[in-house]
Amino acid sequence: WSIVEKQGQLQLEKIYKFSDFQQAITFTNAVGNIAEDEGHHPALLTEWGKVTVSWWTHAINGLHENDFIMAAKTDEIYAKR
Amino acid sequence: WSIVEKQGQLQLEKIYKFSDFQQAITFTNAVGNIAEDEGHHPALLTEWGKVTVSWWTHAINGLHENDFIMAAKTDEIYAKR
Repeated sequence: WSIVEKQGQLQLEKIYKFSDFQQAITFTNAVGNIAEDEGHHPALLTEWGKVTVSWWTHAINGLHENDFIMAAKTDEIYAKR
Repeated sequence: WSIVEKQGQLQLEKIYKFSDFQQAITFTNAVGNIAEDEGHHPALLTEWGKVTVSWWTHAINGLHENDFIMAAKTDEIYAKR
């Protein structure tokens, strides 16, 4: 994960690679499911062969422990796909 | 739709608004389905309450008639949701 600043907000960002569009959007849905479960929502940029996931906490305009937990869960989803 | 330049490529871009994350990701999947049907893939940025859709043609590094057709189909999906 990289820590990047976007529009003045620190965010955790990672690019996951896939071999086609379908696998990318399946991953987007899986990450979307944990987001809904936890009530904490990332930005998910889905493209052919890759998904860029960004986690941050709007309420504090930056990073909270929960973002790191969600980042780890996102890695787990990718590892188990 | 706006025509924007990203990394030297002209793209068609539009932001669609929704009332929650679930509706946004449902829309992402619907656009993903037409992309797979047509073999032409956009960038889909899914966030809480909005999806930013970008269409362009990698092979010509810019915009082709097909991008405008896909943009119109994306509008139809939004209208019929």
